[in-house]
Amino acid sequence: VSRDHHPESSRVRVNGVVFGSDRAPVIIAGPCAVESRDQILDVAMRVADAGARMLRGGAFKPRTSPYSFQGLGERGLELLAEARERTGLRIVTEVVAPDDVELVAGYADMLQVGARNMQNFRLLQAVGERSTAVLLKRGLMSNIDEWLGAAEYVVAAGNPRVVLCERGIRTFETATRNTLDVSSIPVLRDRSHLPVIADPSHAAGRREWVPALSRAALAAGADGLVIEVHPDPENALSDGRQSLDLEGFRDLVVELRDIAGALGRPLADRPETSEADGLARRSASR
Amino acid sequence: VSRDHHPESSRVRVNGVVFGSDRAPVIIAGPCAVESRDQILDVAMRVADAGARMLRGGAFKPRTSPYSFQGLGERGLELLAEARERTGLRIVTEVVAPDDVELVAGYADMLQVGARNMQNFRLLQAVGERSTAVLLKRGLMSNIDEWLGAAEYVVAAGNPRVVLCERGIRTFETATRNTLDVSSIPVLRDRSHLPVIADPSHAAGRREWVPALSRAALAAGADGLVIEVHPDPENALSDGRQSLDLEGFRDLVVELRDIAGALGRPLADRPETSEADGLARRSASR
Amino acid sequence: VSRDHHPESSRVRVNGVVFGSDRAPVIIAGPCAVESRDQILDVAMRVADAGARMLRGGAFKPRTSPYSFQGLGERGLELLAEARERTGLRIVTEVVAPDDVELVAGYADMLQVGARNMQNFRLLQAVGERSTAVLLKRGLMSNIDEWLGAAEYVVAAGNPRVVLCERGIRTFETATRNTLDVSSIPVLRDRSHLPVIADPSHAAGRREWVPALSRAALAAGADGLVIEVHPDPENALSDGRQSLDLEGFRDLVVELRDIAGALGRPLADRPETSEADGLARRSASR
Amino acid sequence: VSRDHHPESSRVRVNGVVFGSDRAPVIIAGPCAVESRDQILDVAMRVADAGARMLRGGAFKPRTSPYSFQGLGERGLELLAEARERTGLRIVTEVVAPDDVELVAGYADMLQVGARNMQNFRLLQAVGERSTAVLLKRGLMSNIDEWLGAAEYVVAAGNPRVVLCERGIRTFETATRNTLDVSSIPVLRDRSHLPVIADPSHAAGRREWVPALSRAALAAGADGLVIEVHPDPENALSDGRQSLDLEGFRDLVVELRDIAGALGRPLADRPETSEADGLARRSASR
Repeated sequence: VSRDHHPESSRVRVNGVVFGSDRAPVIIAGPCAVESRDQILDVAMRVADAGARMLRGGAFKPRTSPYSFQGLGERGLELLAEARERTGLRIVTEVVAPDDVELVAGYADMLQVGARNMQNFRLLQAVGERSTAVLLKRGLMSNIDEWLGAAEYVVAAGNPRVVLCERGIRTFETATRNTLDVSSIPVLRDRSHLPVIADPSHAAGRREWVPALSRAALAAGADGLVIEVHPDPENALSDGRQSLDLEGFRDLVVELRDIAGALGRPLADRPETSEADGLARRSASR
Repeated sequence: VSRDHHPESSRVRVNGVVFGSDRAPVIIAGPCAVESRDQILDVAMRVADAGARMLRGGAFKPRTSPYSFQGLGERGLELLAEARERTGLRIVTEVVAPDDVELVAGYADMLQVGARNMQNFRLLQAVGERSTAVLLKRGLMSNIDEWLGAAEYVVAAGNPRVVLCERGIRTFETATRNTLDVSSIPVLRDRSHLPVIADPSHAAGRREWVPALSRAALAAGADGLVIEVHPDPENALSDGRQSLDLEGFRDLVVELRDIAGALGRPLADRPETSEADGLARRSASR
Repeated sequence: VSRDHHPESSRVRVNGVVFGSDRAPVIIAGPCAVESRDQILDVAMRVADAGARMLRGGAFKPRTSPYSFQGLGERGLELLAEARERTGLRIVTEVVAPDDVELVAGYADMLQVGARNMQNFRLLQAVGERSTAVLLKRGLMSNIDEWLGAAEYVVAAGNPRVVLCERGIRTFETATRNTLDVSSIPVLRDRSHLPVIADPSHAAGRREWVPALSRAALAAGADGLVIEVHPDPENALSDGRQSLDLEGFRDLVVELRDIAGALGRPLADRPETSEADGLARRSASR
Repeated sequence: VSRDHHPESSRVRVNGVVFGSDRAPVIIAGPCAVESRDQILDVAMRVADAGARMLRGGAFKPRTSPYSFQGLGERGLELLAEARERTGLRIVTEVVAPDDVELVAGYADMLQVGARNMQNFRLLQAVGERSTAVLLKRGLMSNIDEWLGAAEYVVAAGNPRVVLCERGIRTFETATRNTLDVSSIPVLRDRSHLPVIADPSHAAGRREWVPALSRAALAAGADGLVIEVHPDPENALSDGRQSLDLEGFRDLVVELRDIAGALGRPLADRPETSEADGLARRSASR
């Protein structure tokens, strides 16, 4: 994954959506967890209208306590696929164990390896043995070299389609949930040819700071953003405090369009309906 | 795992070796990785003579880079079992994936969940569904609440036999590999009824500091220590720099005996041969 | 300094340059240390041409080792004042001890309290007893509450003219010199009415990452930036590795103009010559 | 201060009390702040009886907020001197500004440079220009090299009588006030010839964990301990939560005697009364 051996920046294609340093930044939005059919379809249509290209939503949730909500499992994946059919949004969702990779890849366009699993080497191996694109989040405790080492596990196993995602590191500062290491974006740009995006929601932990961090990450050169959006954040089953509501997301995308334009990388529009339909059909037939 | 619901300290028994706050501290020693039959049998006999009660050694190694030595796998487990037969030492070794739990538990007396997997919840679930004792290492950047949350996953799945292991956290200080959070020992003693031990070798990263950290952890109240020992540290395949040689380990145990005595918790002697034989037979017949 | 007691954002005026959330971001540039007359006059004229409004440069340098270059002292202050006369740039320079405050304030338009002195309470008291504006850098390991506590010392002593400066915190990540905590900008915006700027140079530690961090800080809402610029970074007496050269700074300002425009806060132009002359006279007569 | 240039360990003598690696560990005890004559005399007599050799107590308090209790100033110093006359305990107290050094050194046997001032280079210079012994606490944010750099400032200014004091560093773990970096003790033993002691009270932040950390620091090789003791911790003006009461301190010293004995460095007894009287006279006549 080092730029030493691959000087040109890679592009990673996710069924028509392209991540890469000279391309439009990709906005990924959606709730922390898929909670119900109404919730996910509502949020999918609304974020697609606002300018998102991909939908996020957890079906398998790794939680600090065994007594917290753990996700809807396969039912959640089915709902994500239905949302894709209706909106054309591509789907990224987390996979937490090697045995689940095949199941999740049957529904998702992109597999997320979460921060807590960044050094779950068996899982990295398992997603590396497929061709589905991978979103590799940075571990809370991982330095940049270890993160690139984790990406190397995926690539070495045969899958070069890796996008890195900065999501904040753990520091002594507790005002924010984690500290968004915005510097990692230019550092990775120097060291690796892989695309890098940012997740300002998990870093901030509070929705009021998400817009500023989103703008900052984009200005630092991120190839995309993952933003938590929930139709009713106060009643979310997880992470409500850091989720934008639908109006907040819409307003943010307007700001991001201006900045992306000033950076010479205008935001992508939503996919054409025909393209979305084609994708939905293809994906349904897998 | 909270002391609120279980005021008395738990004891965790590992085929005759007992971890618990009023019992003798347990010394676990051995190499980072099982490298060969000669290496593991030699080190096992020598650490048993010096006063260790359990043998550590990795057969499945999680490594930062996919190109580093990854361990001998099942062959390593067989060698550990042979070392147990010869010495009576109980075996603790790491398991890195849910699918491996049955295999590893077929050889080991205690299953280690490593620092990088502390929040691999599927793995915690899998070791929680067995009765084999679990050594749960602290994540490099996990706080004490998250660590207890991970222990709760194991216990909630049905296995109460969990021993916690402090192994250093990641901080800004780079003189040591990690920073041994010796405070976690009394904090855990307050908050949890589970035994807690320490791994000074991974924290220090340099063998010359291992004795001081071993003494410190014991004096802070640790119920045991895990110490890396290698017959020829300069030529170890991994972690040589932090491994004591056999003589260094022997000298350290002498120091630890004095401190443990002063603390009113004299070190346990090695198991009786007959006990060891019995164990070996039992374990061979599994 | 809390917004609870002062809901409106403060503006801090520094002899015609204004810091405040609805005003143009202020670019401060210059070398780490004043090294010679040629160096400081050259860099002052060049950064003024490129769009800086203030000049930075250390005359008293706090250094980790007593054997490193400690600055030119009062001679450095005289050179800064001469640079102001020639360019109209206002001067900010560090003061490291209470006894020096009067001396430094005789030359400078703004007094910098450095990261290592953020909790040097006597120094805070001393700068608080004057009317000269204060640039209060965040300690490398100070949380936001402690930083605001330090600002409170200055304000409580009678001087409300405080500008906060995020300059990176110390974390486990060593790729960068420090980790720019870009989140502190929106957090401070919520909690305090004081202006906040950022110093991307000290955070990055490497010049190639300074532009990305500068853009990020501006996009996050910073009221200004402090950027190290040296005419010959390779031969700088301190911090050369993180200093932009003159061309690099000029290019960066062009990028920042675009982003500031997109954010609705276009960059300020340089002060009029007449204004600069008036200032130089006033300051010379103090 | 490097062992490279001075291979033998230094001893630092403080009017009859000796710090050094082959000498008995020195117990320093006392309240965070001198609050009243009754308080300081009471605590001094009681900690002397229990086995302390030196008395700590702040007269000038650096506090995070300007609205907190800032100490009794010179009146506090007078009370400390009176306590010395009555008990023979040597006095260590903090000095927070260069201008105060002469005043404080007129009363104290040892000058403490606090954690927040570890890189207040003017203060280091000022204490370096006197012959009074210096207790140099580690900055919360300072790595070992920077700490030794600060010690070098004192020694380079002419004063070789420096004792280092580990007091915990700032990490992500918030269960304790700071994280006692017990590893710094053996690391410093390798790198420097200066004595090193530990302050478990500030690290722990809670009195119930102070005994375990005290034992750990001693076992790691500390040349002494600084322990906060208050006759009525619940009503202390500062840091009450981390102060032992008098009985708790007495019990702890009993434990420490056992460990120090096991380490081959039995605790020092209190100074003879005649020695104390001589000291008091000498100090009064300065």
